[in-house]
Amino acid sequence: MKTPRNPYLTVDVIIEFESEAGAEGVVMIERKNPPHGWALPGGFVDYGESLEAAATREALEETSLDVELIRQFHAYSDPKRDERQHNVTVVFIARPRGGALKARDDARRAGVFYESALPSEIAFDHADILSDYFSRKY
Amino acid sequence: MKTPRNPYLTVDVIIEFESEAGAEGVVMIERKNPPHGWALPGGFVDYGESLEAAATREALEETSLDVELIRQFHAYSDPKRDERQHNVTVVFIARPRGGALKARDDARRAGVFYESALPSEIAFDHADILSDYFSRKY
Repeated sequence: MKTPRNPYLTVDVIIEFESEAGAEGVVMIERKNPPHGWALPGGFVDYGESLEAAATREALEETSLDVELIRQFHAYSDPKRDERQHNVTVVFIARPRGGALKARDDARRAGVFYESALPSEIAFDHADILSDYFSRKY
Repeated sequence: MKTPRNPYLTVDVIIEFESEAGAEGVVMIERKNPPHGWALPGGFVDYGESLEAAATREALEETSLDVELIRQFHAYSDPKRDERQHNVTVVFIARPRGGALKARDDARRAGVFYESALPSEIAFDHADILSDYFSRKY
């Protein structure tokens, strides 16, 4: 079949994380590899893997959290959203159901951030994605 | 950068089409190429092209309709949803804003179908997608 050159397919996960005080934050990881900065956990979808399986796998690999997916949020596909190449991402919303937050794999550090105090350096278009999320755009 | 083998990325479009009598149907096309049967208009996303641009382009190429996208509906990624290879599709909901419905390109025929009388032979997982659409699942 005809398969023209295709964008690369990734997933990212907004993991809703409730503090003991009841504040709702989201999990972000500090990237080991360029582009540097903080980002939502995520990565490439493998051939033969569903988006949902990829989202759960990437969340676990980078944050040590076993997550339950709540729903698909939105797909972002601007060819300029990742400076390295054309990566399209499908973003999920999830909640932890097991594990303890700890950076692993491509993540140097992991943390919970609140809308009022996001990291100053955010990679890709993840600041826009979080803005859409906090404003309940989708 | 590390880019493992990736699923192929496609878009499909649910074009809401109102008859003169006010009935709401959706546009489907009869495929020229295997797998045969009726399907939502759609196709591969080009490298460097946004999902939204691909959806609008594919709708025009296969139905001659200039469509306005209303929103993303859902992404479907079961590795078995297309028997040919692992194709992930992001489905959009749209409405025509110009043009007259006429099959073109990879479409042999085009028609408007209603929930109560869908074609008997529907390709891929498009019957499931339409079921999700008519039941307002997403």
